[in-house]
Amino acid sequence: MLMIPGPTPVPEKVLLAMAKHPIGHRSSEFSQIIAETNENLKWLFQTKNPVLALCASGTGTIEAAIVNFLSTGDRVIVGSNGKFGDRWAQIAKAYGLNVQSITAEWGVPLNPDDIASALQADGDIKAVIVTHSETSTGVLNDLEAINKAVKENSDALIIVDAVTSLGSHNIPVDEWGIDVIGSGSQKGFMLPPGMGFVTASEKAWAAYEKATLPKFYLDLGKYRKAADKASTPFTPPVNLYFGMKVALEMMKAEGLENIFARHTRHKEAARAAMKAMGLPLFAPDTHASPAVTSVVPDGIDAEKIRSVMKKRFDIALAGGQDHMKGKMFRMGHLGFVSDRDILCAITALEATLQELGYKPPASGVLAASERLQKG
Amino acid sequence: MLMIPGPTPVPEKVLLAMAKHPIGHRSSEFSQIIAETNENLKWLFQTKNPVLALCASGTGTIEAAIVNFLSTGDRVIVGSNGKFGDRWAQIAKAYGLNVQSITAEWGVPLNPDDIASALQADGDIKAVIVTHSETSTGVLNDLEAINKAVKENSDALIIVDAVTSLGSHNIPVDEWGIDVIGSGSQKGFMLPPGMGFVTASEKAWAAYEKATLPKFYLDLGKYRKAADKASTPFTPPVNLYFGMKVALEMMKAEGLENIFARHTRHKEAARAAMKAMGLPLFAPDTHASPAVTSVVPDGIDAEKIRSVMKKRFDIALAGGQDHMKGKMFRMGHLGFVSDRDILCAITALEATLQELGYKPPASGVLAASERLQKG
Repeated sequence: MLMIPGPTPVPEKVLLAMAKHPIGHRSSEFSQIIAETNENLKWLFQTKNPVLALCASGTGTIEAAIVNFLSTGDRVIVGSNGKFGDRWAQIAKAYGLNVQSITAEWGVPLNPDDIASALQADGDIKAVIVTHSETSTGVLNDLEAINKAVKENSDALIIVDAVTSLGSHNIPVDEWGIDVIGSGSQKGFMLPPGMGFVTASEKAWAAYEKATLPKFYLDLGKYRKAADKASTPFTPPVNLYFGMKVALEMMKAEGLENIFARHTRHKEAARAAMKAMGLPLFAPDTHASPAVTSVVPDGIDAEKIRSVMKKRFDIALAGGQDHMKGKMFRMGHLGFVSDRDILCAITALEATLQELGYKPPASGVLAASERLQKG
Repeated sequence: MLMIPGPTPVPEKVLLAMAKHPIGHRSSEFSQIIAETNENLKWLFQTKNPVLALCASGTGTIEAAIVNFLSTGDRVIVGSNGKFGDRWAQIAKAYGLNVQSITAEWGVPLNPDDIASALQADGDIKAVIVTHSETSTGVLNDLEAINKAVKENSDALIIVDAVTSLGSHNIPVDEWGIDVIGSGSQKGFMLPPGMGFVTASEKAWAAYEKATLPKFYLDLGKYRKAADKASTPFTPPVNLYFGMKVALEMMKAEGLENIFARHTRHKEAARAAMKAMGLPLFAPDTHASPAVTSVVPDGIDAEKIRSVMKKRFDIALAGGQDHMKGKMFRMGHLGFVSDRDILCAITALEATLQELGYKPPASGVLAASERLQKG
């Protein structure tokens, strides 16, 4: 049982769709699948612009989101309050961009005012690169406020890593005027890893025309041109497309509002449970990720908790990353997760704490169940 | 029934392995799968160096093979006698390399002497980039001779696109001293598309240390470092790994020599059949790809042949690419293909020709069957 922030659980019928024999990626049958999934991806991304599917991990996808719209020496701001924010700064530097990092401590949300001030101080910032849901800490940065700060103080593009937030949190991409936004298949999409998705605004495509950073496989212009013909520039992961067709149909049947409400309910149930059990949460309630809940279990070895959860209950939790290794565990509740899964994971966690000799002050299961009942 | 040069047919047990629920890519179970497949990939690539698995198409993989070992302005030779050779020249130019193209007409193999002369004329060539099996034409370039020409006339790296030749033709990578070589999952590996593989020599890794072309997602140093710990730098396509574990076990059970002999047998059977039926072959016998047989059916519309094959027999053949569109069809015989598949495809082709009013001078089926009998 996967309770990590990716790979996330995959529905049986998606897995079975993926077990079909591959077909030619230049066949009319496959072209129909591309056409249908392209439309459904637009629905999911709340955009009229094409959503481009890459055979790449989330990192490759966000690299594409950066390198297609900028040129060597361009000044960019990278918001960083965790491992993934740091990674986008590394990518920007690897390509010779001039990076100004706006940081916050791990567990603390980025301050939109810091970004506004930085933009006011430097009129030549070409892009602000920001992670929405920081998977390493469970912090959900305030994308709406950051986007507003960017728009009000500059002409910079806003480039968003929504790898673990897209499909779990409402991001009205076109309405907010998000310029570039990317995500990955093994997150809110109920698919195994192997694909990434990125879409860009008209303003971003205008920047693309002038952008000189080198690219070929990640050249989004090639993907856009192919998407117009319900095709792909390079051989796509055909069997993942079979799965994506089914997964997007399931998402459409559930509806965006229901999907977002479910993720909010699970996030709040998980947090209520951790609080009841006296386990400190790493991210504040005001900025908690709908994808993952990070816990810093004071006085109990986080790796021991993960180990017992795995051995006794076959439930996978994620550990802390980098300097938080051993101090943190992270419970994912992203994608194909039900109320039953949440209750089950919390129950197992409570039993695990008991086994490790820790006596929770109150029942986590009751707290979670109470929140779940509210719908 | 897929008789195209990729995606190629996938065994049922590989598909079923891929239909399992994903597991955490940082779990010890997954680490064991990585360790095992890494070892088996070394066996398949006939190398002691790590074979790195990327979540990328063949193009992304060959881009990695190029950009990791070179710096802006480096002078390189690209051998090009088809669509894919042209593509590697485009990539090299996109990254600011100084490209000299050594070409041959489509359907004609590259002349190793041309490469030798070019290297003698310019002592500062850093790499020779060459496609082994040119999928667009069915020509198998003489890699052994080209490699010798490179070694005898320069210190240049040889970078090889073996996308459709690895696993179908003997390439003793270490013995020949091939510096960089890449391939893709949907080709000889009996897997769906979604992964690429690349390995590099010690000489190439020394060049990597000085190479300055920008890279992050395709930075092979990160993959090598992770491979040493049976891990991956970015989220890998977990379910494709499940399939790869099984596919590589099947390949090991068959044995390299048997795999190569089977591909030779199928290539020769297909070519014998085309000759018997009076269908002109595009590549010469001396340089025929073990992956795909290209046919230029004089006086018959190649697209009509493909269309009848698809409609009446549900057999997918590939068409001609670029300027050969409509003039050529290509029959793949790569990966998980049996004698039965070859006979079946030839029989259907013979029936298709009959339906289109063409009377073959002799039986293709008998010619193919005669060759297959020889083993």
